[in-house]
Amino acid sequence: MLDFNDTSSNLFADAVNELSKLPGIGKKTATRLVLHLLRQTNAEVEMLGNALIKMRNEIIFCKQCHNISDTEICHICSDKNRDNSLVCVVEGIQDVIAIENTQQFKGVYHVLGGIISPIDGIGPNQLNIADLVTRVESAEIKEIIFALPTTMEGDTTGFYLFRKLTDFNIKITTIAKGVSVGDELQYADEITLGQSLLNRRPFSES
Amino acid sequence: MLDFNDTSSNLFADAVNELSKLPGIGKKTATRLVLHLLRQTNAEVEMLGNALIKMRNEIIFCKQCHNISDTEICHICSDKNRDNSLVCVVEGIQDVIAIENTQQFKGVYHVLGGIISPIDGIGPNQLNIADLVTRVESAEIKEIIFALPTTMEGDTTGFYLFRKLTDFNIKITTIAKGVSVGDELQYADEITLGQSLLNRRPFSES
Repeated sequence: MLDFNDTSSNLFADAVNELSKLPGIGKKTATRLVLHLLRQTNAEVEMLGNALIKMRNEIIFCKQCHNISDTEICHICSDKNRDNSLVCVVEGIQDVIAIENTQQFKGVYHVLGGIISPIDGIGPNQLNIADLVTRVESAEIKEIIFALPTTMEGDTTGFYLFRKLTDFNIKITTIAKGVSVGDELQYADEITLGQSLLNRRPFSES
Repeated sequence: MLDFNDTSSNLFADAVNELSKLPGIGKKTATRLVLHLLRQTNAEVEMLGNALIKMRNEIIFCKQCHNISDTEICHICSDKNRDNSLVCVVEGIQDVIAIENTQQFKGVYHVLGGIISPIDGIGPNQLNIADLVTRVESAEIKEIIFALPTTMEGDTTGFYLFRKLTDFNIKITTIAKGVSVGDELQYADEITLGQSLLNRRPFSES
């Protein structure tokens, strides 16, 4: 798509260029979105623009779990109805959102802010791992659940965390690997199917 | 997707909600975009937000052609290298962008701001039609090209404009309907193929 710069409106071109910096949004989609915004009121567009600016400027990270928060300690950590002795360790904020959406978890989180990945130059020191150890030392934690990606990097991170935490008197668990709910067995990959056999459970518990 | 409101950050939830009002952007995509923005600097997010707000607040419409503009008369209308006697009539701004991108047109535009569509309650009086007639009366225009949608509404609009303009001593043309470049004939619909036969041209001119 041609740059609209020289032809009609720089304001329009700037808005398109800024939107097309977002992942998955090309010039054509950005143009369509800006044309849509032109049909909205000034107040509506200001609400959008200011929501983004305010979010970026004012959002902070929870001092305890490193999740995004509006306050020093996030709503999840300070929720009296949640079990503070059950901590789910995740890679990032997106995983907290995903797990919250299951409505199955009533513990709290610890966001690592990444996973160990030597190829990307990310070692344990760049992650919120020392913090997790301090947390285990100082608070009454009974169980730590690893909810990490089922990739080599995820496994490496889990193994590293396990070594750091194994001397404490806590239960360390990891989320189950197995066949997705609703999947036909013939379409599951061998490794996943193999894991789901190894991790079989009493039928009466399922 | 669950509302993130009660759990962690209202700032985050607001940003997601505002973005998901955009067409084609659902809660999941909006969440992905906000997570991306969280990884950008404050300055970068401000550039995006302000570009949208500034565009909506400051953009104006060209007094002559009704295209979006930063100035009273847009860059296209005021461009000395363009032929002001050749006017292309289009439905909206998006069509100006599309035609500009062909780099085939060196005339000027007239943006109707819609097309006649009784079903949507849009009649000739809601469109920039009276203005077009005034423009033809007052300026030296030699040819008007209709570049309207090839739909019933587009045809109706073209027919209405033709009746309004036919008494002036100007050439009135419409863009060619035919088989798309790169298309196999067997996949063209019958009406388009029929039109392309009726509108056949000397091979030497093609």
